[in-house]
This record gives sequence, structure tokens and C-alpha cells, in this order.
Amino acid sequence: MEAKSRTLGILLYPDFELLDVFGPVEMFAYVGDELTLVSVAAEAGPVRSAQGQSSLADHGFADCPALDLLLVPGGIGTIPALEDETLLAWLRERAASAEITTSVCSGSAILARAGLLDGRRATSNKQFFELATSQSDKVDWVWEARWVDDGDFVTSSGVSAGMDMALAVIERLWGRERADGIAALTEYERQRDPTADAFAKRLRSTPSA
Amino acid sequence: MEAKSRTLGILLYPDFELLDVFGPVEMFAYVGDELTLVSVAAEAGPVRSAQGQSSLADHGFADCPALDLLLVPGGIGTIPALEDETLLAWLRERAASAEITTSVCSGSAILARAGLLDGRRATSNKQFFELATSQSDKVDWVWEARWVDDGDFVTSSGVSAGMDMALAVIERLWGRERADGIAALTEYERQRDPTADAFAKRLRSTPSA
Repeated sequence: MEAKSRTLGILLYPDFELLDVFGPVEMFAYVGDELTLVSVAAEAGPVRSAQGQSSLADHGFADCPALDLLLVPGGIGTIPALEDETLLAWLRERAASAEITTSVCSGSAILARAGLLDGRRATSNKQFFELATSQSDKVDWVWEARWVDDGDFVTSSGVSAGMDMALAVIERLWGRERADGIAALTEYERQRDPTADAFAKRLRSTPSA
Repeated sequence: MEAKSRTLGILLYPDFELLDVFGPVEMFAYVGDELTLVSVAAEAGPVRSAQGQSSLADHGFADCPALDLLLVPGGIGTIPALEDETLLAWLRERAASAEITTSVCSGSAILARAGLLDGRRATSNKQFFELATSQSDKVDWVWEARWVDDGDFVTSSGVSAGMDMALAVIERLWGRERADGIAALTEYERQRDPTADAFAKRLRSTPSA
């Protein structure tokens, strides 16, 4: 496994979903010295979540350091974010140089709107699946998936799926022992199978996308 | 089920564990109009988590509104918090008037140090169990438990267990349909059995406490 030091950029925007961010951040933070975590928003400072609690962005788009990994959350704020050309342009620029760009929940709708998922396989939250699929018909949208690993883009299903996706990315970059150790420390029963999606099955048996 | 409006106070202290707070907060936030969430720290303003990201406390101890529910997280900051007499006094005062005081992970060590768990059943994080049990020998510490509901005190095991505990409290106060709906919306596979603790079993078969 690589010992290279990396930086993960956590995108925050108004009305982001709290657990989309802090589930994966909890897991990534335990990678330790080999990963630096920074949060980024249009401007540094407080960003209010969809659930009301505010978190501080360490950097604005203008002063954000180089990023190896990128985490794009969903939440009700996805809807205005889809129209935010500054945010979309920043994502296009940063995803182009990132090793892996990840999303949780409706975060994949934002990536699709930016054109970043065209020609790729991707998934999204099951209760708001059309919000993602309607952004681009050039994406191979996967209905039944806890997460989809398409190499330099890894998209996950709704909210809690972000934790399984984060552990899968940690396993890919730093090995299974590291990922399992983090899951044990946080007493998280990880889903190891990206195709095991109980929530897709509960909503409908065949995809509409 | 009751339609009474309640307020949940989320305790923040330096080096709190991110997911101990934002896992339960994600679940509680979807209760909707019947529950107001406020975060509280010694002083209002930014509080840095153990994972580095900072969140804003809405209130200081002095200006915190009346609380019906209380959430006490764990994290590495638990250790200095155990010596923080201002925090312990605030917890004793607020727990006395709260309907339910909850904790996640090593948050139960703080409650035990404040004397609030004496004569009660409680649990804590499995990898730091002695940090909790060493705070009071008057507590009936339960080794194998995802969470322990002792009426007005509900303590949970490590980090991720807080989400199962939060959904159990939501079910108790607002009904199973509400709790299941929130779990489905957040695509969270909830553990419904408070005694199902895979992490206790993996570490040892018999309790040392």
C-alpha cells in the first residue's frame, strides 16, 4: 500500500446534509497522518447545514490547497447548488486534478450537472434518484447500488451509504486492515458489498432510469 | 403518540467525536416541527472536534434554553471534560429537569463522573470501556449492549451506536413509523435490538467490568 500523503477536500454549501459530510469525515479522519482533511466552501467560515447546525469551512474556493480526494455531499441545498456556476466551475477544475472525486446522496446530481459523470457509472439517493438522473442522460445510472466505484469517481447512495463508500475508498488506498480497523473503532457495521442496496429493493424492483 | 413540542440540547466540548454528535443529530432533525435542536457549549461559537472540523454552538451554558432532551457525545475530549467542574455542574442541573438524557460512546463516562448514572444500567464504547466504568462503581455497567434504555437516561456504545440509540428514542417518543421513516430516508440499516453488540463479542466473550 502507498504511504503517500494526501489531502481530502470536504465541500460545504448552504443546506448540505450533515451526515453526508460527517459520516465519511469520521472514517477518513482515522486514516491518520497519511491524509489531511480540509473543508472548503465558496467563502471560508460558517456554513449552515440542512439540519440547522453550522460548520466552519477552513478555506474558500480561492485559497483552497491542492486536493487529492474530494467529497461532495448532498442535501436539500443540492437544488440551488445545481444552478451555482461558481461551484460547478470549481468542481470541474478540482475534479480534473484529483485522484478520486467522491459524492454522497444527491451530491452525484451536482457532479452530473457539472458534466463530470458523463460516460461513467454512478448512483445516488434512492428517494431522490430522478434529481440525479435528470441532470444528464450520458451517465450510466445504477439504481441498485450502495455505492459505485468508477475509478476516479466514486458515487454513493443516500446519506448513510457515504460511510460504506468512505471505508471502501480507504480500503482501496490504504488496505483492508486499515478500513476494518476504523470500522471497529467507530463500532460501524460496514456494508462491504457495493451492490447490496436494501433501500433500492424496498422502493421498486425495477429501475425507472 | 404525543404531539408535545420538545427541545434537544446537543452538548459540544473541545475534541468531541464528530459522528457521536452528527449521527444522532441527523436522525433527530427529521422528527420535524415537534423537536427543536440547539447546540450548547461553555460559550457560544466555534468548537473544534476531535477530527479537526469545527461546529458552531448556538448557545453558551449561561443562555441555553430549557431542554427536554440532552445529547452528550464522547471523543478524546472526554478526558479533560471529566475534570471540568463547570460542565459537570451544568449537566447535573440540566439532566435533573430533562425528560431523557442520552449519551454516545465515552459520553457515558462524563455522565458517570457527574454521578448521574449511579444506581442505573448504562453502557459505553467497547474499546474504551474502562474509561466509563472507572468513573463510578455504583453504575450497573452493561458490557454487551448497542445501547441501554434506563428510562430517563439512555446510554449507547461506540460512535455509530448513537444512530441506533437516537432512532430508539425517536421510536419511544414519536412511534415506530416515524423512526423507520427516518431510517429509510437516510438509508440507514438500523439495529433494533439493544442487546445485539457485535463489537463486544469480537473483543471478549465475558465482561471484565
